[in-house]
Amino acid sequence: MVWDAGMRDEQIPLLDAWWRAANYLSVGQIYLRENPLLRRELVAEDVKPRLLGHFGTVPGLNLIYAHANRLIRERDLSALYIAGPGHGGPGMVANAWLDGTYTERYPSVTRDAAGMTRLFRQFSTPGGIPSHAAPETPGSIHEGGELGYSLSHAYGAAFDNPDLTVFCVVGDGEAETGPLATGWHGNKFLNPATDGAVLPILHLNGWKIANPTVLARIPEAELESLMRGYGHDPILVSFDSTDAAEEVHRRFGAALEMALDRIADIQTAARENGSSERPAWPAIVLRSPKGWTGPVEVDGLPVEGTWRAHQVPLPSARDSDEHLQQLADWLRSYRPDELFDDEGAPLPETVALAPRGDRRMSATPHANGGLLRRDLDLPDFRDFAVDVDAPGSSDAQATAVLGEYLAEVIRRNPRDFRLFGPDETASNRLAPAVYAVTDKQWNAQTIPLDEHLARAGRVMEVLSEHQCQGWLEGYLLTGRHGVFNSYEAFIHIVDSMFNQHAKWLEASSQVPWREPIASLNYLLSSHVWRQDHNGFTHQDPGFLDVVVNKSADIVRVYLPFDANTLLSTYDHCLRSTGYINVVVAGKQDSPQWLSMDDAVRHCTRGLGTLAWAGTETDGERPDVVLAAAGDVPTEEMLAAAAILRERAPDISTRVVNVVDLMRLQSEDAHPHGLSDADFDGLFTADRPIIFAFHGYPWLIHRLTYKRTGHGNLHVRGYKEKGTTTTPFDMVMLNDLDRFQLAIDVLDRVPGAAERHAILRQELHDRRTAARAYTREHGEDEPDIEGWRWHG
Amino acid sequence: MVWDAGMRDEQIPLLDAWWRAANYLSVGQIYLRENPLLRRELVAEDVKPRLLGHFGTVPGLNLIYAHANRLIRERDLSALYIAGPGHGGPGMVANAWLDGTYTERYPSVTRDAAGMTRLFRQFSTPGGIPSHAAPETPGSIHEGGELGYSLSHAYGAAFDNPDLTVFCVVGDGEAETGPLATGWHGNKFLNPATDGAVLPILHLNGWKIANPTVLARIPEAELESLMRGYGHDPILVSFDSTDAAEEVHRRFGAALEMALDRIADIQTAARENGSSERPAWPAIVLRSPKGWTGPVEVDGLPVEGTWRAHQVPLPSARDSDEHLQQLADWLRSYRPDELFDDEGAPLPETVALAPRGDRRMSATPHANGGLLRRDLDLPDFRDFAVDVDAPGSSDAQATAVLGEYLAEVIRRNPRDFRLFGPDETASNRLAPAVYAVTDKQWNAQTIPLDEHLARAGRVMEVLSEHQCQGWLEGYLLTGRHGVFNSYEAFIHIVDSMFNQHAKWLEASSQVPWREPIASLNYLLSSHVWRQDHNGFTHQDPGFLDVVVNKSADIVRVYLPFDANTLLSTYDHCLRSTGYINVVVAGKQDSPQWLSMDDAVRHCTRGLGTLAWAGTETDGERPDVVLAAAGDVPTEEMLAAAAILRERAPDISTRVVNVVDLMRLQSEDAHPHGLSDADFDGLFTADRPIIFAFHGYPWLIHRLTYKRTGHGNLHVRGYKEKGTTTTPFDMVMLNDLDRFQLAIDVLDRVPGAAERHAILRQELHDRRTAARAYTREHGEDEPDIEGWRWHG
Repeated sequence: MVWDAGMRDEQIPLLDAWWRAANYLSVGQIYLRENPLLRRELVAEDVKPRLLGHFGTVPGLNLIYAHANRLIRERDLSALYIAGPGHGGPGMVANAWLDGTYTERYPSVTRDAAGMTRLFRQFSTPGGIPSHAAPETPGSIHEGGELGYSLSHAYGAAFDNPDLTVFCVVGDGEAETGPLATGWHGNKFLNPATDGAVLPILHLNGWKIANPTVLARIPEAELESLMRGYGHDPILVSFDSTDAAEEVHRRFGAALEMALDRIADIQTAARENGSSERPAWPAIVLRSPKGWTGPVEVDGLPVEGTWRAHQVPLPSARDSDEHLQQLADWLRSYRPDELFDDEGAPLPETVALAPRGDRRMSATPHANGGLLRRDLDLPDFRDFAVDVDAPGSSDAQATAVLGEYLAEVIRRNPRDFRLFGPDETASNRLAPAVYAVTDKQWNAQTIPLDEHLARAGRVMEVLSEHQCQGWLEGYLLTGRHGVFNSYEAFIHIVDSMFNQHAKWLEASSQVPWREPIASLNYLLSSHVWRQDHNGFTHQDPGFLDVVVNKSADIVRVYLPFDANTLLSTYDHCLRSTGYINVVVAGKQDSPQWLSMDDAVRHCTRGLGTLAWAGTETDGERPDVVLAAAGDVPTEEMLAAAAILRERAPDISTRVVNVVDLMRLQSEDAHPHGLSDADFDGLFTADRPIIFAFHGYPWLIHRLTYKRTGHGNLHVRGYKEKGTTTTPFDMVMLNDLDRFQLAIDVLDRVPGAAERHAILRQELHDRRTAARAYTREHGEDEPDIEGWRWHG
Repeated sequence: MVWDAGMRDEQIPLLDAWWRAANYLSVGQIYLRENPLLRRELVAEDVKPRLLGHFGTVPGLNLIYAHANRLIRERDLSALYIAGPGHGGPGMVANAWLDGTYTERYPSVTRDAAGMTRLFRQFSTPGGIPSHAAPETPGSIHEGGELGYSLSHAYGAAFDNPDLTVFCVVGDGEAETGPLATGWHGNKFLNPATDGAVLPILHLNGWKIANPTVLARIPEAELESLMRGYGHDPILVSFDSTDAAEEVHRRFGAALEMALDRIADIQTAARENGSSERPAWPAIVLRSPKGWTGPVEVDGLPVEGTWRAHQVPLPSARDSDEHLQQLADWLRSYRPDELFDDEGAPLPETVALAPRGDRRMSATPHANGGLLRRDLDLPDFRDFAVDVDAPGSSDAQATAVLGEYLAEVIRRNPRDFRLFGPDETASNRLAPAVYAVTDKQWNAQTIPLDEHLARAGRVMEVLSEHQCQGWLEGYLLTGRHGVFNSYEAFIHIVDSMFNQHAKWLEASSQVPWREPIASLNYLLSSHVWRQDHNGFTHQDPGFLDVVVNKSADIVRVYLPFDANTLLSTYDHCLRSTGYINVVVAGKQDSPQWLSMDDAVRHCTRGLGTLAWAGTETDGERPDVVLAAAGDVPTEEMLAAAAILRERAPDISTRVVNVVDLMRLQSEDAHPHGLSDADFDGLFTADRPIIFAFHGYPWLIHRLTYKRTGHGNLHVRGYKEKGTTTTPFDMVMLNDLDRFQLAIDVLDRVPGAAERHAILRQELHDRRTAARAYTREHGEDEPDIEGWRWHG
């Protein structure tokens, strides 16, 4: 191994200058409110009253950044930097200020002493910037709050970006998380010819908040085996606090160079020589002390190289003379006078190795994906419409119809649209249509039996919802489009990733220079009402409850109730930016209700009366409103409406369907919210409302509690009653079936239960008989079909 | 490698008989409703109308089970079987029926033809049993619905069970999930002397639902590296469909034997020779065809060894003569006449190798942990009380006080209580107390700098919420006790695991032979209101919304508002069984409100008036109810009450605190629910209620929408407004601060805003000034303290 292949001797002081400058600026952010350049003696009042931030991981991040800079320039690379240890926010900010991007984005943070003071003061302070890499940080697509997603984001960014190199720093803390541990396998899905490169840099600084890390405490041979087992060819490089800076730069520079050489070889083999072998991609394992270059000992206890360096190594710098002196010594150890000019601007030598313009990692448009995003070339969704001569007269599988549409979207957008799923794309019926136009991208071994696998393809399938979500986030954040399709129950696996992405979008919308990225679109199928055969574990519609807690500016929830409403909804979602669109739709053969023209009108409003299903007289308020959201609830409600129309024609009904759930909220709570007047006009202010809902019933109450007629609202939904049974038994178990809904109407319309006592008893008996039949025969009673909607 | 060290030739036919019998019974469950023994020709009507279940993984599971049986008997092992590919439910049921446990648990499922018919019919059918391994399955502690947790459950079961061997079958599908991928590192935390053994058996059958699996499609050398990197010494054994049964049994038997020999050696070295080295534990990699022993080809397409064998290999057995004939041939290939007697009972040779009594894996009490659970030896929590002379007169850190109590719990229960956390036990202030009595268990490398690490200890810390949750579940399900402490925001990472455990508990409560296990106790600290410094990503109280969706029989939510109420709450939690207790508590210095006697009284009721804080006159209803749940909201509400008492004494107030959130629900919705009369008595039916809530405000509406006075309820809580700021700015951002709460009262008590216009303006100005001060100085205005509660 030749350790210093390409580095020239004169580059070493330049690398070291950047490293010292970035470290100095990082420490400054954590500690200083005045005296940024240490041009006078440091006094207690120069130190912030509240010391926040994390120093431990920063020097390693800065070292990598400095060396990446050199090689970006020398090789004219387009590169993105992902800081998995996102606590190292001060480092990322420092690098962006050094290369000038920070001042371009935030002109008040000038490249002089005043700007440096502002840079320091704003850090982790009210009205300032977060302590982690965040949407506010130039060059970042990766928030450092919740850990575990750096590799998934890196692969997502690299897909379809053949000219991009992603430096992905993996912290040894986050390396213990599940999502990160499976994230390594992204390399089985990366195509060296058509995708970019990910260079994982496992940064072992040995400690978490208060514990050692697992990967830092296994023998070197075991760690190397692990990296090889992940499919990497590891380059191990270790430093301790006694290594001279020159030695550090020579060895790390050579390691990075070697890694980039190998990537170049791999890409040449794939792109010019047609190799289709999965290569052993390089990965760097960088072992360095936590809190490197910081205080060795504080109050008699070792700090550098220990967990005590995780956050603020000198916690009493403002209150203790000794700590203050140590802080001054520490800051001066970076020799700021050699790094910044009299005005406080970085000296030319300090930034001599930095790339220029968009090649700066903090300025790359890949980290501000909205700049690169182009609108999708979408077909006319009406071309995929299901014919509906009369409501309920034909059956179709909604997701299969959507699959035909998505296939055409894929065909027209071969470079910037992908479909992600945890081995459920076929199960959710998007196949076979999508596999007629593309394949699943798979760069592991193949055998002749395989179907629809290819080295490059638009469908990404891995049995990890975390990977699907993380890849899609990375893909969107770098300016592309996509859909995540999954089983409804198991999307809870990524609740926390959803939360974090929603927070990212919310915070990004306040950052003026961030351009809007494409919405993150979920398609949840195999939903609660049709998981009868898989049983209780597969029955959970509660993701919607998680979603509606996030900012109304970001989240949208749609429950299209047939194929045409699903098509219209998805067309809207794929055109939108800045949102998270959650769409729940069925995959089973189900009645179709609206013609395409009606579907478009209905979806445009987001909710509305199904006039053909109710019996109200023009100009008079109905006796009852029958509302529904979701395909199965709407089918049940329409069947109940038919029963009532025929058997209790004296009851005047209005049938309402809700596709856009956020319409139910008040207009001050959500931009889609109906005005109170419109709400009252549709639902009435004083009539009973029987609402059949796809999810947990109380969600409807939570959305409507401020409405005038809320006291009249009676919601049926999934109340956590489930088991292995039949589809109709599932709705009966939860009192959402047509018979119970009709009973609910009779019970709530004044006088109806008495007038229709016989019907009521008959409905009750039908339920009892249906349940008994199912228990006896293991299937639904055939003549329940006779009680369905008929026009 | 000696491949058949201990197996005797005459054992091979016995192993094969069990394997064939288990496979036969598994296929029977998927297909048959009549003619269970094939004593007459198979006709279409014998086949179920709806074919459900998953055959693909079953033969491998059954092979492992058969061979484990042999070695359990020969070595008198206590063993637990975890079927990671839980879809293989029919296999687990078949094995339990063969060894007699099934009939002992379900006497109607007799060991004869009639019982076999019942066994087949009940499978995956309404009123029957789920298609996955489930609470209903004897011997299972691991649901097969959501994938990824088998290894975590296995390690949880093995901790503190030195005599237990856990055979943990890992499916190659689930191996792609994040939680499973990090689950391998459990071996760094296992002590070979004081814990049991986990034998992972990675079962590579090559396919998921519709895709190959990653680990089946990497070169053998890479896979072996991966296993070594995980710290295992792998034993690879591969079969294809052409291998003769004898060959299969010889080789797999020898592999299992070798693995158990190594485990025995490791345990001897640790237990008798005092070795403290982390050993390379054995792991088996079993490569076998998916749908092994099933139809090779169906309708001209290959099935055995492909993804087509995942579920039902012959989908048209009832409708197609050809499929029916194939099914008959398949079933007869197991030679049922040689396996079962004339009555349908297993022949002695079929079950000759099965262990007896509790040694049967389906009968082990470790899989019915309630049998082994003993009550904890708990100290009197009153001994840890904080002195409270007058409400608000002293400060304490609630979780630090709890830490003192938990330390004593640990001291008294050295073998069956553990504390789990993702590197946050110290940060959440349970340290230093707990480390005075125990250490963190850590079997990876150590260095002299380490503190509180030991080969055995009661605290388990790994930076993976999934591992913490999975380990604790495994520990509880095998009859022990524990607490999971975590940051509030990031507990969302395990939303889906929480859901699945709640479903397991709910389903278990319906299984008569399952004894109750200890509750799963969460301690969520570093909560939303005190994550001001970490910023927006760390602010999320929404786990409570996920929790309350689950069955009211299972979930409990507590928001103790000081140290003494936390102690009283936790004493209750640690005594309970069958629940999931979610406790949110602060770790910062905060005012203490109740003496221990008052705290016990208050917590026993779960909610109640803080009479000392209100100004209502006996016998008259107050003008307004000031309610709060959570420590920060209560502090703010009490400050508001003090302001009003002093400045608007004409307003008669009642202050209510809610510790047990479920008391707010109706009594028909939750067993803790207050009656409407009691609710109205406390909150009034007609007075305004200003409610300061810890979490998202609409959760309170969702819990109370049926209450008479709901229309008068005005809730303040976290409305997703967050950033990097100060604690008081956080409450101001969300309108939960004392000034706004007092304004809310003035605005809602009729006439008060007019009467107290000056006060209202002053409060408004205070808010504006406080926000400005924080922006200016980066800290809270010091004299906000002057507006705190004073008695």
